[in-house]
Amino acid sequence: MRHITLLTDFGTREGGDAVMKGVIWRIVPGNPIADLSHQVAPQNIREAAMVLERIAPYFPDETVHVVVIDPGVGTKRRAIAARFGNQFFVGPDNGVCTPLLERAERAGAPIEVVVLDNPEYWNEEVNPIFHGRDVFAPCGGHVAKGIPLGKMGTPITDIIRLKPPEPAIINGVVQGEISHIDYFGNIITNIKHEVIKPLRPVVVRVGGVELHDLVTTFGDRPVGDLIALNSPTHYVMVSVVNGNAAKRLSVNIGDRVEIVPQTR
Amino acid sequence: MRHITLLTDFGTREGGDAVMKGVIWRIVPGNPIADLSHQVAPQNIREAAMVLERIAPYFPDETVHVVVIDPGVGTKRRAIAARFGNQFFVGPDNGVCTPLLERAERAGAPIEVVVLDNPEYWNEEVNPIFHGRDVFAPCGGHVAKGIPLGKMGTPITDIIRLKPPEPAIINGVVQGEISHIDYFGNIITNIKHEVIKPLRPVVVRVGGVELHDLVTTFGDRPVGDLIALNSPTHYVMVSVVNGNAAKRLSVNIGDRVEIVPQTR
Amino acid sequence: MRHITLLTDFGTREGGDAVMKGVIWRIVPGNPIADLSHQVAPQNIREAAMVLERIAPYFPDETVHVVVIDPGVGTKRRAIAARFGNQFFVGPDNGVCTPLLERAERAGAPIEVVVLDNPEYWNEEVNPIFHGRDVFAPCGGHVAKGIPLGKMGTPITDIIRLKPPEPAIINGVVQGEISHIDYFGNIITNIKHEVIKPLRPVVVRVGGVELHDLVTTFGDRPVGDLIALNSPTHYVMVSVVNGNAAKRLSVNIGDRVEIVPQTR
Repeated sequence: MRHITLLTDFGTREGGDAVMKGVIWRIVPGNPIADLSHQVAPQNIREAAMVLERIAPYFPDETVHVVVIDPGVGTKRRAIAARFGNQFFVGPDNGVCTPLLERAERAGAPIEVVVLDNPEYWNEEVNPIFHGRDVFAPCGGHVAKGIPLGKMGTPITDIIRLKPPEPAIINGVVQGEISHIDYFGNIITNIKHEVIKPLRPVVVRVGGVELHDLVTTFGDRPVGDLIALNSPTHYVMVSVVNGNAAKRLSVNIGDRVEIVPQTR
Repeated sequence: MRHITLLTDFGTREGGDAVMKGVIWRIVPGNPIADLSHQVAPQNIREAAMVLERIAPYFPDETVHVVVIDPGVGTKRRAIAARFGNQFFVGPDNGVCTPLLERAERAGAPIEVVVLDNPEYWNEEVNPIFHGRDVFAPCGGHVAKGIPLGKMGTPITDIIRLKPPEPAIINGVVQGEISHIDYFGNIITNIKHEVIKPLRPVVVRVGGVELHDLVTTFGDRPVGDLIALNSPTHYVMVSVVNGNAAKRLSVNIGDRVEIVPQTR
Repeated sequence: MRHITLLTDFGTREGGDAVMKGVIWRIVPGNPIADLSHQVAPQNIREAAMVLERIAPYFPDETVHVVVIDPGVGTKRRAIAARFGNQFFVGPDNGVCTPLLERAERAGAPIEVVVLDNPEYWNEEVNPIFHGRDVFAPCGGHVAKGIPLGKMGTPITDIIRLKPPEPAIINGVVQGEISHIDYFGNIITNIKHEVIKPLRPVVVRVGGVELHDLVTTFGDRPVGDLIALNSPTHYVMVSVVNGNAAKRLSVNIGDRVEIVPQTR
C-alpha cells in the first residue's frame, strides 16, 4: 500500500478536492489519503512548492503526492508522474516539484519522470479544464496501486525547474527577501540559517526594524517581543512571541531582508 | 466495505463535522470517510445539492453520502436513507438529493427510500438540535456496515423534490441565471451546454457584457481575458483567464444570463 | 488498531497539520486519523478544551487524541501522554485535557499520565518550535501502535488543570457568561442546563434582552425569532432561528448572562 497526499488551490468549499478522493478510491478502495492543503493561493506554484518541500520528507516511503496547481490546464503544458528517490509525484509539469527533484539529485537517489500520455490510466471522459479530477487523480491512484510509471507514459529528462530568488551577499551584507508569511503571521525569509551561521551574532533588518541576533524559541522572550529565530525548515524567521509579526511590521511577501554581522 | 462521504454546513472549526466521524467509527472502525464539504452556506440546500450532484458519481459503487443541511432539525421534517442506483444517501428529507434521485430514475436504476424511524440505529441519546451526530451519522455508519435499509425504517415514495429554476427559451433567447460562483470566481449558469450547442456560435450576455461564443479552455486566451466556456459539469460558465470573473463583472447568484445565436 | 484525532491551531493552509499525519503514518501505516479542528483561535487553550470535551466521548474506545495548542513550545512546559478512562491524550501539559481528566475521575475510571521524556519515541531531529511534528505526532503514533505509556515517559500526578469561570448563584440569580459563539452565531453560555432546570420557567438575560424560558428546538418558533434552548452539550444557549444570534445582539465571549426564575 502506498499513501497518497493531495495539494491543490481548489479550496474546500465545493468538493473539487473531494472528487479526487472519489476517483482515487475507485482505483484503490479505502487507500489512505491526506490533504496537504487545498488553500494554496490560486495559481501560486511557488507557495505550493514550499508546502510540498516542507512536508513530503516526513511521509512514509513510496508516498504519492498529487499536486494540482494548474494555471495552464488545457494548454500544451505536460502532465507528469515521477519518482524522486523514495517519493512519487503526480501533477502538471510546472516546477512545483523542483525541491523534491533537487533533493533526490543531491542524494544520488533514483529519479524517473514520465509524461502521462497513456489515456488508459485517465478517466474515460477528460474535461479540458479539470485535469485534477480526470488525469491526475486517476494517475495518482494507479501509481498508488503499483502500476509502473513506464506503463503510464513516456520518459522525459527535460522537466521544468522553478528557481525561486536566492539571497545575495554584497559587501558582507546578506540580502534576501520575505518568501512566506505563515498562518500565525510569522515572517519566513529565503535566507537559510546555515548561510548566516558563520556570521553570528548578527543583526536582522526587516520592515524598518533591527533585531539583535536569533533566539532559540518563543519562550526565550516575553509575550509581545519581536524576535528572529531559525524556522523548523531552517530559514531565518521573524516572529512576535504569541503574536503576529507580519501585521506588527506591515510587511509583505517579496519585501527586502538584510542580515549583517554585529559590529562589536 | 462501503466508503462514506460527509456534506454539511457545520464549518470545520468546532468539530461538529469530526464528531460524526467518531460516531461512524464506533460502528465501522476505520471506515474510509471523505469530507465533500463542510462549508456550504448555512442552510443552503440548493448549494449542497449542486456539490452532491457534481461529486457523487465519481465515488465508488455503494458509497454512502451523509448530507446534513438541516434548517428543519427537530421539527416534523423526516429523516431518510435511500438507495439511488449504485449510491446511498442519508440525511434530512429536504430535496438535497433530488439530482441523485432523478439520475437514477433516468437510468432506470433501483431506487429505495425509507424514513429512519427505527431508534435502534440512532445514538442512545438523541439531541433535538443535533441529528447530524445522533441520527444521521449512526445511520450512515449502519448503512456502510451493510444493514438493509428496510431494517432501519419504513419505505416511502413521496420524497421531497427540489426544483431549481430552469432556463426558458423566449423568442429565440435562452434566458437563465447565475446558479453558482465558485472559489476561483468563475460564474456558473443554470444553462446546460447541450441546450445552446445547436445555436452556436452564440453571444453570451451577463453582467452588462457580451461574449462571442465559447472557448475550449483557459489557455485559448491570454491571461486577464473574459471568456465563456463549457464547465466540467456541462453548464455554460463565464471566467477570467487566471482571474476572478464574478469580481470583474460585480455579479451575484440569481443574476440574469442570456444566450442568443450570433447574427451573421 | 487505535483511531487517532488531531486538534491544533495550525490552520489548514500550510500543511502543519498534514505533516503530523505523515509522521504518524511512518509509525502506523494507513492508521485512521480524523481532524477535530485545526482552526482553534491561535493559542486559545480554553476553546480547544471545549472542542475536545464535546467530541472525544463520541470516538471509539482507545482513540488517541493528539492536541497541540502550544504557546509554550520550547520552554520548560512539559509534554505529556495520558490515559483518561477509555481514551488517550497526547500533547503539551497546559490544561486542555482537564475535562477528560475530570470525567474519568468522576467515573472512577483508570487514569495514567506520563511526561514524554524518552527521546526514543520522538523524531530523530526535534525542532524547538515544532513539537507538534517532532514530539507529539510520533508519540501519538506510538500510542496508537500500542506502546505502553510507561515506556514513553515518567509517571506524574501533578498535571496542570484549567479552571474556566463557573457561574455563581447570587440572591437567586444565576450569573454566568458567554463561553463560546459558534459557527452559526449561536451563543453558548457556561451555565449547565441542569443548574437552571429546577428554576424553570426562567427568564434568560443576555445582550440587553430578556427571553422567556427555553424552547426544545429551532422549529418551535418562526424563522428570525430569538430563542433560548438547551445545547447539544447541555449548556444554556441563545439562538436566532435560521439566523445569527451573536450578530443580532452584538455580544462577545465573556459577556454577562443572567438567569432568574419567572415571577408568576
